[in-house]
This record gives sequence, C-alpha cells and structure tokens, in this order.
Amino acid sequence: MYCTQPIRRAASITPNKVATVFGERERTFQDMRNRVACRAAALRDVGVEEGGRVAILALNSDNYLECFFAVPWAGGVVVPLNIRWSVAENVYSLEDSGSTVLLVDDAFLGTAEEIREKTDQIKTCIYIGDGQTPSGMLGFEEMIAASSPMDDAMRGYEDLFGIFYTGGTTGFPKGVMISHRNLYTSSLAAMASLDMTQGGTRYLHAAPMFHLADGMASMANTIAGNTHVFIAAFEPGAVTAAIERHAVTDVLLVPTMISMIVHSRALNGRDCSSLSKIFYGASPMPEGVLRKALEALPDVDFYQAYGQTELAPLATVLRPEYHVFDGPQAGKLRSAGQPCYIVDLKVVDAEGTALPPGEVGEVVVRGPNAMMGYWNRPEQTAAALKDGWVYTGDAGYLDEDGFLFVVDRVKDMIISGGENVFSAEVESAVSRHPKVNEVAVVGIPSVEWGESVHAIVRVKDGEHVTEKEIIDFCRELIAGYKCPRSVEFREEPFPMTGAGKLRKMDLRKRYWEGKDKQVN
Amino acid sequence: MYCTQPIRRAASITPNKVATVFGERERTFQDMRNRVACRAAALRDVGVEEGGRVAILALNSDNYLECFFAVPWAGGVVVPLNIRWSVAENVYSLEDSGSTVLLVDDAFLGTAEEIREKTDQIKTCIYIGDGQTPSGMLGFEEMIAASSPMDDAMRGYEDLFGIFYTGGTTGFPKGVMISHRNLYTSSLAAMASLDMTQGGTRYLHAAPMFHLADGMASMANTIAGNTHVFIAAFEPGAVTAAIERHAVTDVLLVPTMISMIVHSRALNGRDCSSLSKIFYGASPMPEGVLRKALEALPDVDFYQAYGQTELAPLATVLRPEYHVFDGPQAGKLRSAGQPCYIVDLKVVDAEGTALPPGEVGEVVVRGPNAMMGYWNRPEQTAAALKDGWVYTGDAGYLDEDGFLFVVDRVKDMIISGGENVFSAEVESAVSRHPKVNEVAVVGIPSVEWGESVHAIVRVKDGEHVTEKEIIDFCRELIAGYKCPRSVEFREEPFPMTGAGKLRKMDLRKRYWEGKDKQVN
Repeated sequence: MYCTQPIRRAASITPNKVATVFGERERTFQDMRNRVACRAAALRDVGVEEGGRVAILALNSDNYLECFFAVPWAGGVVVPLNIRWSVAENVYSLEDSGSTVLLVDDAFLGTAEEIREKTDQIKTCIYIGDGQTPSGMLGFEEMIAASSPMDDAMRGYEDLFGIFYTGGTTGFPKGVMISHRNLYTSSLAAMASLDMTQGGTRYLHAAPMFHLADGMASMANTIAGNTHVFIAAFEPGAVTAAIERHAVTDVLLVPTMISMIVHSRALNGRDCSSLSKIFYGASPMPEGVLRKALEALPDVDFYQAYGQTELAPLATVLRPEYHVFDGPQAGKLRSAGQPCYIVDLKVVDAEGTALPPGEVGEVVVRGPNAMMGYWNRPEQTAAALKDGWVYTGDAGYLDEDGFLFVVDRVKDMIISGGENVFSAEVESAVSRHPKVNEVAVVGIPSVEWGESVHAIVRVKDGEHVTEKEIIDFCRELIAGYKCPRSVEFREEPFPMTGAGKLRKMDLRKRYWEGKDKQVN
Repeated sequence: MYCTQPIRRAASITPNKVATVFGERERTFQDMRNRVACRAAALRDVGVEEGGRVAILALNSDNYLECFFAVPWAGGVVVPLNIRWSVAENVYSLEDSGSTVLLVDDAFLGTAEEIREKTDQIKTCIYIGDGQTPSGMLGFEEMIAASSPMDDAMRGYEDLFGIFYTGGTTGFPKGVMISHRNLYTSSLAAMASLDMTQGGTRYLHAAPMFHLADGMASMANTIAGNTHVFIAAFEPGAVTAAIERHAVTDVLLVPTMISMIVHSRALNGRDCSSLSKIFYGASPMPEGVLRKALEALPDVDFYQAYGQTELAPLATVLRPEYHVFDGPQAGKLRSAGQPCYIVDLKVVDAEGTALPPGEVGEVVVRGPNAMMGYWNRPEQTAAALKDGWVYTGDAGYLDEDGFLFVVDRVKDMIISGGENVFSAEVESAVSRHPKVNEVAVVGIPSVEWGESVHAIVRVKDGEHVTEKEIIDFCRELIAGYKCPRSVEFREEPFPMTGAGKLRKMDLRKRYWEGKDKQVN
C-alpha cells in the first residue's frame, strides 16, 4: 500500500500503453514513471523532505496527475488546493498545512502572485504548465530534463499521503489527513464496487482533480493501468468532444454537470457510443435529470457513490441495476445505495447507539478508508472520529435491505453544484460586514445547482445595505460559489429553539414547501 | 480491515440471501452472522482469549466457514490444519502454534484421538460435525444454542489473523503468520483481478479449505456477499454434481483436479452451463490438460493465479484473454501471468539487484499481502522476508510485457497434485531408517500428479532394504502425499558440486530428458 506502486506496476506490465492523453499529447506508462521519478528528484533538489507539504493549484492535466504521484514518490505530502477558493482561503490552507512549495499552472499564475503577496509561506513556486516559465518561478519541464530518476522514497501504509481541505463547520477550512492506506483501500474498493478494473477503460478527468472523488478515480485507474484522458475544466461541449475524440469509456461527474450536459446541445451530433459508465455523487441527483440522462444515454451504466473527503471518499454505492423507475427495485433510486465493500456503516442516535432499519439518526462509517484526522485539529478530530467511526454529519436511515437514505445534514451545509458550502463559513463572512447585525444562511431550491446559497440578514438599527453590497463584500473573503446568490432582509428576530438555537428548518420552510428536497 | 466485517456487511445488506449451501442445508447471511457471533461467545466461554490459537481439522463444510470467521470474531487466531498431514506433523503444528482448542469434524474423530494421545497441548476439543457429539468432546451445536451472540472482538489490521503451516525447507513445517491486513488486501486484489465481485456468483469450495488459496476465496466471496457452496472433499463426480445441482458459477481447482475431471466421465450427462469461471493455480498446468479443459468447457473463463502462502497467497494472475494457443498472445499461456494489482514484483540476482527482462533470477514480491513472518522462527523469517520483500524461492524471468515465467524452484521443492513437498522433509524421514546411509529426493514426471516424489537411496554397507519398507517407514512420519512413490537404490556416490553440495539437477536429468518440465 504505497500509492506510488501502481505507477511501477503499470510501467512494468504495459510500458508502451498510453497512460495519459491531454489534447494532442500522449504519454506512455514508461514515460510517466520516468517523469514522475524525475519530478520527485527535482522536488528533493528544491528541499522537499520526508513529510514536506507540496501544494498544487492547477486545472486538470496530465501534469497534474504526474505531480499527484511525484510528491509522494519524493517522500512528500500532497496538498491539492481548491481551484474555486478565494486567495484568502488558499492562503489559509497553505499556512495551515505549512506547505513550502507551490505547483501552479497557467490558469493560476495571477493567483499565485497574489498568494505570495499575502504570505511568506511559499519558498518555491514551480510552474507546471506548457508555456514559457514565468519569472520568479522554476519551470518543472526544465527541472525534469535536468534530473535523473530517483528511487521511490517508499512512503506507504499509515504515512500521510495528502491533506485535502474541506469547508469547516466552525467557519474555517479543515485539512483532512488521508494516509496511503486510506486512499489505496478506498480505490481498491471502488475498483471492485464500481467495476473499474483493467481492460480497455479510458477514463475522462472532467471533474476537478483536487477533489478526492476524482483523486480516487486517479488512483483506481492507475492501479488498473487504464488510460487517463483530461480536459482542463468542465464544460458540457468539452466533455462530449473528448468522449468522441478519445473513445472515453468512463467518466465521473457531479449531478449538476450531468444536468448541464443533458440540458445543453453538447450531445447533438457527437458520437458518445464508447461511453459505458458514468459515476456520479457529491450531491443529490434530481429524478428529472436522471430520467433525462438515462434516456439520452441508454447504453450507459450509472453508478452513484456517496461519501465525503473524510472517507477518502467512499461510503456507499448505488449500482446500475437500481437505476430503474419501475418494478420491485424502483424505490432504491432515491437512496445513496449500500455500504461499499470495505466499510461498516450504521445509523446511530445521539448516544452513538445503532438504530434499527427505518429510524433516522446520524450516519457513521468505519473502515480502512476512515481519515487519520484533521491536520492540527485534535478537538475537531475527536468530535468527528470516535473509536474509528467517522461521524458524517448526515442524517439518514437504512431500509431493510441496507440501502441508505440520507434525509438531512446534521452539519449545517448546503450542496450547490456538487460543492459543499458550510453555512457557518458564509455566515462568518457576511457577519463581518459592518452594517450587519445578524445573519442566517440556508440552501434554497435551484434548478441549476440543486441548492443555492441564500442569506437572511438583519441589519443594524438605522443602517441600510443592498444585496449587491453584501455579495461583493463576501467575494473578497470566500470562494465565489460560497457567496450568497440572494439576500433577504428581515426585521423580526430569528426563530429560536427552546435551547436558544436558531431554527433553520423554519427559515427554509417557505422555500421548500411543495418542493422535493431530496438529499443524498 | 477486519476480516469479520464482511459478515456484518452481508448480513446487513442481504440478510435473507443464502450465504451457505451444504447438501440440503441452506443458511442465510443473517443466520451466518448470528451463528458466528454465538460460536465466538462459546469459544470465549471455553477460555479462548485475545490472540489465543484455535486449530481446525475438518473437511469442507458450512461449519468450517463459520469457524474460520468465528475464531477472529472471538478475538482468536485460526490455525487450519492440513487434512493430509500425518498425526506427527499435526501434533508438531499444534505444539508449535500453541493451540489449546481443536475443532474437529466426523472425518477426523480418530485422528483427534491419536493427537490427544500424543500431546497434552489440546485442552478442549469441539465437535463441529452434524451427528451425535462424541464423548470427551464438546458439541458446537449445543454450545451455539446455549450462547448469546457476542460483539465482535474487533481484531483487524496488523493483528494476527491465522497461522498457516507449510512444509519446511529445513525439514520441519513452518507457521506462516497472516495478518488481517494480509488476507483482506489479498482478497480485495483478487476480487478486482479475478472479477470476483458481487452479483449472482455461487462459489464452490471443492479445493480444501485449510489451504490459503481457498481461504482467500472464502474471504473474497464473503466480502462480495456471494453464496458459498461446499463439497466435503474433491471428487470429480461430486464437483460436477454440485455444479449442476446448485447452479455453481465459480470454482477454484488445482490442475490435477481439472485433469481428473476432464479425463473422467464426471462431465458426461451433467449440465454445467452455469459455470463461468475456473481459478487454478498451486502447480503447473500441463498444456494438454488445459487444451482439453478449454474444449470441454468452452464457455468458461480460466484464470491462473500464482503465489504462495507467504503472500496470502496472491502474486500474479493470468487472465482469460491469455488462455489462447494462437495469435500474438499465444506464448503468454506458459507464463504465470502478470503481477496482481497490489504488489511490486521483481526478479533479482543473488545480491538482490533487479534483473532486466529475460534474465533468470529469484522472484521476489512486496505488498500489503506479504506475511508478517514465520511463527517463532526469526531466522527463517529474516531469510524469507527482507525489507518487506518476500523471497519466493522460485526462479524465473519477466518478459518485456511483465509476464512472469517461472523456470525452477530455488527452494528444493516438488509440487505433486498441487501440494508442495519439500525434499528436505522427505529426506529427513527416509534418512531415519536404520539401514539408510544417504538419500536424495527429487520430483520426477507424473501424468497424474505433475510430479511425483522419488527417493534415491544409498544403503549402508552390508544391509538390504526394499522399496516397500522405505515407503511404509515414511508413512508413520509424514503425510501420504509426501512419501516417496518410488525408490531407486544406488551404489555410486551422489554427484556433488565443487562446493560439496548435492547436484540434484544431475539426478533429475535422466527422468526429464525429452519431457517438458513446465513449472509455474
């Protein structure tokens, strides 16, 4: 269980097979191994030591995949930054993780500059794009050319593989520590659960690679020795063009992406007959979208995966045979599926006691994929990880067949376009506006995004502020997708529980009445 | 990575699915979980403590499978005894492992008695058969009925799962220590490599369950939640009858068993159309047998697995697409296949340096399936396990595509009917005969068994002894399959190397000339 072992295996058994396809460029597994080993040597040369953190801020590419493996090959720990986060959030992640090296591509040269103005954390900035190396940076291609391949540093098993930042319930991002064992076992389970095994698979990286969902697919498809195809970023037409051009067989998408594809003209005139599997997850799939997708792509098998970064990230799987609207299995489509091979999963009450089928409680999961904890956050780790069980923060129930139905999130979180937005983070940003007295942030229905972020604001006495001012103010502090899409002003006090807690249920109610809030 | 977790998962998601079929008896996964948890409670009641060794000496059955999981559920360590070993060998294994509890079925009641006459090691003997409990033993069915299910003791990860005895190069059996992680990861890799995933699989236990090959299949099919079918012991007609009667889809066999099936009338008049996969391994498959098997079962996919107990036991896999006699892949059939997903595999010279493709050296394997070591044998452990690499004792080479061709065994071992026979053990037995001066044991060609055990004896001056006397003498000391099938008497000295080592190559030569010694 070295996450680098699949590179060696694939290079040994299929040296001349195409490992990566990015635009016109193809690289074989032999190329890939050599480049990974040279990149690792170059990272050592700039001072990356055993356990040293190396951050990546880049769109999808073959270079991204190589760096994902080169960092552990060098003995380091990878910190994939969220490409949608604000400069402030990424500065926080870099400082919190203690990353001293930043890998950056063309899309983020400006951001990298802003980051370096705001923090001295980054000692070395390495350009991983294909153009001219910008001044003030090292160029990874030149470094590869000047390096000899090094032997793998052999990090593995319980060693830290990466730190993956996720929004925080307390208003600050948390770094999820994922070990080699976590990612490797999760990927092996995915291979067996999602039929991601060797053969003619050509996997398309269309979802962002910094997310651990695609990270697991990166790993599983490398273990299987499959060909990786990349598009820099999701766009419906780019997905279908890549499928046609590169005979893509498998792709992982979030429901919003699937919705955008089937509601656009992206499929028109494209030959997508090579496509055999779509994996989706990260947010609920509205039934209408799924019906349309199954109609548009009748030969494709759909697999739903549910999980979270803390589970590296797999918890349950809903297999293709349950994607039906009629017959005895029809109701299963509204579930998140059944526990994946490697986990124990139960639904517990507030005391941690397992509940019988049908009763709603918190979903907890135990297995070799359960995170090591949160980086430098022993208290939050203790709250989320008890006796090896990850407390997901999701409320749900199991049916008699062990299908998990997620009914609400115990953690106060909104899922918009597949991204998790913690209300606390948005509330923290809005509340810093000098004219705001009190704020509550909730998710409201959105055809496009599933949910959209809605702020309800109580302004200070005698003050006035506009919706636009609130939103613009937030943009400086948090990622665009976290900023409120709409702001509502309210005079009366917020509804409270007897214990003095805000009753968000009541605030959400009028938006969701008559709507089907399907959460999974 | 608790080897007991799959029992919980299967009972949770498919409580009413048939878990085991043995003759007329079917048990669901819910039954199985409850019985395993009750068996575990009963084992605790008779004094099995955390890490305590519990031996099993039994033919295949649903009860065997339950015990295989009940022992770790109770916190214990399972010691599956070789059903073909002599009383002396099993007494050795019981004393060496320190097993205090012995589980035994009807077939071994007499053996158990003999064992207890020869050693005081066993404090409790539990009958796991279906008849009347013999006097002097406890009855497991009564104990289950009197017990309440206990919570899993939660052994897992690096904890010792079992001790699996294997013949020893020094003349004594060695206990291979397999952790929960070893068996779990090997099984996950098998699921992905051998397509042993969930669905309609009905796996037939026809090979003996004490062998780790079938042990891995026990584990993988339980992880997958598949139905297990059992026959007590291999017999060609029993295999095909079980396939027909229980709609078996998958079976693991050794080549000798496949040979016996295709050369007997077992297939005549039997409907084996449900069968879709045959896994085979443990010894070379003669090409003639494979041709005949592929002809007789044209719709079956054949998967070869190569490995050893020390690898829990998987190292390489030859997939169905390479089971062809013509075309560009034709030559691959003579290989042992490619490294399975989870391992690094290389061929090294005497200094441990990796050799390029085509060069013969020792096969070494590293991965999460590499054993913890040999029980109580630090020196032999140090010799076989270096820096995480298991030294297999097999000589071979890799081709340009990473296919492993095993050409000889570095360890002096004979494979007869799928069983490993270490020459040293046989030589040790023969040499104890008072009239024997010197002995060398080699494998010679056998149509039925692949190789058969042949002893070359130099009698003491002035003495006379017959072939039958030698063989009968050995039967008291070692398992029947290890005893020489033929004995040759020789007057001239044995051929020696310059370093004074016996040149076995020279002794074998005349038997193998013109024959194809295909070893894998």
